[in-house]
Amino acid sequence: MDEAAKKQALRLFSYGLYAVTAREGETVAAMTVNWATQVSFAPPMIAVSMERESRTRAMVMRTGRFALSIYAADQRELAGLLGRHSAKMPDKFASVAWEPGSATGCPVIAGTLGALECRVVDTIDAGDSILVVAEVIEAHAPRDGEPLTMQAAGFKHAG
Amino acid sequence: MDEAAKKQALRLFSYGLYAVTAREGETVAAMTVNWATQVSFAPPMIAVSMERESRTRAMVMRTGRFALSIYAADQRELAGLLGRHSAKMPDKFASVAWEPGSATGCPVIAGTLGALECRVVDTIDAGDSILVVAEVIEAHAPRDGEPLTMQAAGFKHAG
Repeated sequence: MDEAAKKQALRLFSYGLYAVTAREGETVAAMTVNWATQVSFAPPMIAVSMERESRTRAMVMRTGRFALSIYAADQRELAGLLGRHSAKMPDKFASVAWEPGSATGCPVIAGTLGALECRVVDTIDAGDSILVVAEVIEAHAPRDGEPLTMQAAGFKHAG
Repeated sequence: MDEAAKKQALRLFSYGLYAVTAREGETVAAMTVNWATQVSFAPPMIAVSMERESRTRAMVMRTGRFALSIYAADQRELAGLLGRHSAKMPDKFASVAWEPGSATGCPVIAGTLGALECRVVDTIDAGDSILVVAEVIEAHAPRDGEPLTMQAAGFKHAG
């Protein structure tokens, strides 16, 4: 395989930026992801690839529930904060404003443009990550605005 | 569920536009997709959600191989053409220039910024679609340029 071409081509994919959150009793966890896509209209389903080592990913799989909040264009800093590994910054979620989602109790991040509350329906081993396939069971769209994109944020997580 | 919020939130996801192609002997098929994402770095893997009714999807699943070409910003018209249902336009691929990929023989579309040749490793039922998970086995990045995005194209396929 042409490794340079592989990296270059994979970095041409277009992505948004999203917060994935989970809740287990009073414990909450959050991470920033970009490998996310809708996968079905009816029923509404999405798929999110999550790093195998992620604490949030493990909580999502134990509870079978998560919320995905869509960062607004002005939330680059927050996306970066929640993108840090919890091992390096255990309290990264402490300063973040959120409300529990009505269907799952999972955190819906304040200031985001919308959020989907989801029920996990399948998980697939995908190399260094796990692809989580989920049905959307509740949705919130509190305000209008432009979403944050990977390109605008200048983040790199592909290749 | 708040149906209006569901549509609004899902339409805030950011997408690129890609051609998925398949080959079975001398027969080739192609379609435009936007529900695609990388899902693993090592090994390099992607996932693409394909409509259940798609002829290209069926050929991908029969052969276990496909190529994904990344449209350039100036290929909006081609993306629209290959996005039409083959039932309505059986010869939609006739006027499109392509070369067979070196690893799979699947069409790599001319003028695109890059292409990934893929081997299907898993397929998951996802409502009205099928989520195809694949390993990248060869890659091509023939030229620099900006990729076509759903937002720039003005296409809608989410919600």
